[in-house]
Amino acid sequence: MAHHLEQTADLGEGELLSRIFPRLGGPRALLGPGDDAAVLAAPDGRTAISIDTLVQDQDFRLQWPGGYRTTGYDVGWKCAAQNLSDINAMGAAATSLVVSLTLPADTPVTWLEGLADGLSAALGALGAADCAVAGGDLGRGGQLVVTAAVTGDLQGRKPVLRSGARPGDVLAVGGVLGEAAAGLALLESALDYVQLNGRERALTAAQSRPCPPLAFGPAAAAAGVRAMMDISDGLVRDAGRMAAASGVRIDLDPDVLRAEAESLADTASKLGADPLHWVLGGGEDHGLLAAFSPGEDLPRGFRRVGNAREENSGAGLVTLGGREPAASGWDHFGG
Amino acid sequence: MAHHLEQTADLGEGELLSRIFPRLGGPRALLGPGDDAAVLAAPDGRTAISIDTLVQDQDFRLQWPGGYRTTGYDVGWKCAAQNLSDINAMGAAATSLVVSLTLPADTPVTWLEGLADGLSAALGALGAADCAVAGGDLGRGGQLVVTAAVTGDLQGRKPVLRSGARPGDVLAVGGVLGEAAAGLALLESALDYVQLNGRERALTAAQSRPCPPLAFGPAAAAAGVRAMMDISDGLVRDAGRMAAASGVRIDLDPDVLRAEAESLADTASKLGADPLHWVLGGGEDHGLLAAFSPGEDLPRGFRRVGNAREENSGAGLVTLGGREPAASGWDHFGG
Repeated sequence: MAHHLEQTADLGEGELLSRIFPRLGGPRALLGPGDDAAVLAAPDGRTAISIDTLVQDQDFRLQWPGGYRTTGYDVGWKCAAQNLSDINAMGAAATSLVVSLTLPADTPVTWLEGLADGLSAALGALGAADCAVAGGDLGRGGQLVVTAAVTGDLQGRKPVLRSGARPGDVLAVGGVLGEAAAGLALLESALDYVQLNGRERALTAAQSRPCPPLAFGPAAAAAGVRAMMDISDGLVRDAGRMAAASGVRIDLDPDVLRAEAESLADTASKLGADPLHWVLGGGEDHGLLAAFSPGEDLPRGFRRVGNAREENSGAGLVTLGGREPAASGWDHFGG
Repeated sequence: MAHHLEQTADLGEGELLSRIFPRLGGPRALLGPGDDAAVLAAPDGRTAISIDTLVQDQDFRLQWPGGYRTTGYDVGWKCAAQNLSDINAMGAAATSLVVSLTLPADTPVTWLEGLADGLSAALGALGAADCAVAGGDLGRGGQLVVTAAVTGDLQGRKPVLRSGARPGDVLAVGGVLGEAAAGLALLESALDYVQLNGRERALTAAQSRPCPPLAFGPAAAAAGVRAMMDISDGLVRDAGRMAAASGVRIDLDPDVLRAEAESLADTASKLGADPLHWVLGGGEDHGLLAAFSPGEDLPRGFRRVGNAREENSGAGLVTLGGREPAASGWDHFGG
């Protein structure tokens, strides 16, 4: 007997929400889902807030060339991770997610349940212990669109901006560089997913389910970091944004970054790619780029990748060992 | 010489944002756009938050049968209005919007600029004087999707829930009933938009650019309202939600609602529709449904539409003069 795969079109919005909410464990907001708005604690009288969206066929494919099928779990995880990363970059701790889902009518209910599971699992695995899924919204559309807004608690500290880097500062990275780009290259390649080795699968997971280092942002803020941002569009492009906001040039250290690329060399060789290109230009790792005063010890988890230098053009110049790098990150529209 | 209509695909994300932000006047957040997250004041140590999405061909058509073309301004206005309404329903005052836009590559830049203008105009016209557009996100997709998260300040009061109505309470409405549904019927009809009279155009505007009564929510909260919610899916459906949450039956007064329908009678007659159906079942007016203790004066702008009655089934029963009504609101999925 053939089973009918239950689709979201078979259920009303209320019934779908009743499938999702029990899967979202974790902490509770002051007032959670069920009313017109949720209510969060804002203990220091401020709330940090950001919003980010994942769109099918833009930010993920449901079916990749090598056979990997993106699960609802992957998309839920990635949605949580990329939003939490924005709060991390301010030196804050996430307090809530509110999530809006646009679903084609034929989306399986199990895919939606997986999305809720992935959201919830990411909050636990990434250490966002105080982050509640406070509310949501469901609607129909022609393609999957998942938007979340995330709030954070600055815990009494100043928000860490992009504009605070000064000439002489040490530029450091917390989290991985180039892994999500390597994973993307694997998923986009014709290599059969089932035949990938363990390291290669881990790289595809870095693309599908990134792990932003959520402990590092508040720790860096407490240690007096001068500027910080999420690396979402690639080291060079994001460093250029920090350089422009801070009025400095950022000079990256080619020896350090070549060493970073070594762990990606085997995969790059298999694909005929340059691993340094992934390290310099690859997006979606959601690590942190941070500027620290010279002479200070870097907080645990951060490693030096360059220095800020005097620069008066305001152009957001990034150099690699004093010269302009070949690779840069990407832009959602142009570039 | 033919002019090339500038499309969003022609510009990078940074350049597009630089087109939008100067159009967003109004108050400023503690930290506005430009970093990984914005920072808002939360003066009483709490933040109310909600999220809502508009999807092309689901929540609006770019081109209606009678010829009306939905503008970016309309969509920006409606996005602000429906989000602000959720904060209003909690008895709170909106403090910020963060907006995520998913745009097809051929979206004209002027459409996007219009969206920014509509957002900004709605904040001004609806009296959201303290609401900042604090941040945003831009990406590509196959259809227009506009999501906003909105935050609010409860100003030291308890949030007003749906669950506080008690038997005997007076059910009252603030804001219009059925106008957005009448406007939708006009836009969906074959009537030529250009030939519509002034009243009919005003009804289509109630659909395209709704005006939630933002002063009424905080005023009702200050006056001790017992339960309140936004009427977004129609009076009967939303009253059913309040009835279920509060454990009461809501009995609507047919004489009052028939009188409400009179102002829509001419339009309904022209379209062969029943105006009472719009009043009972029409969504998207974004007025308020509120329960007040019996014997209290209703705050300015609210009018009685029924009463809460004893009911122990928990089924969320709504009756019209003691009998089950024929019309009900709609559901994004089923219904």
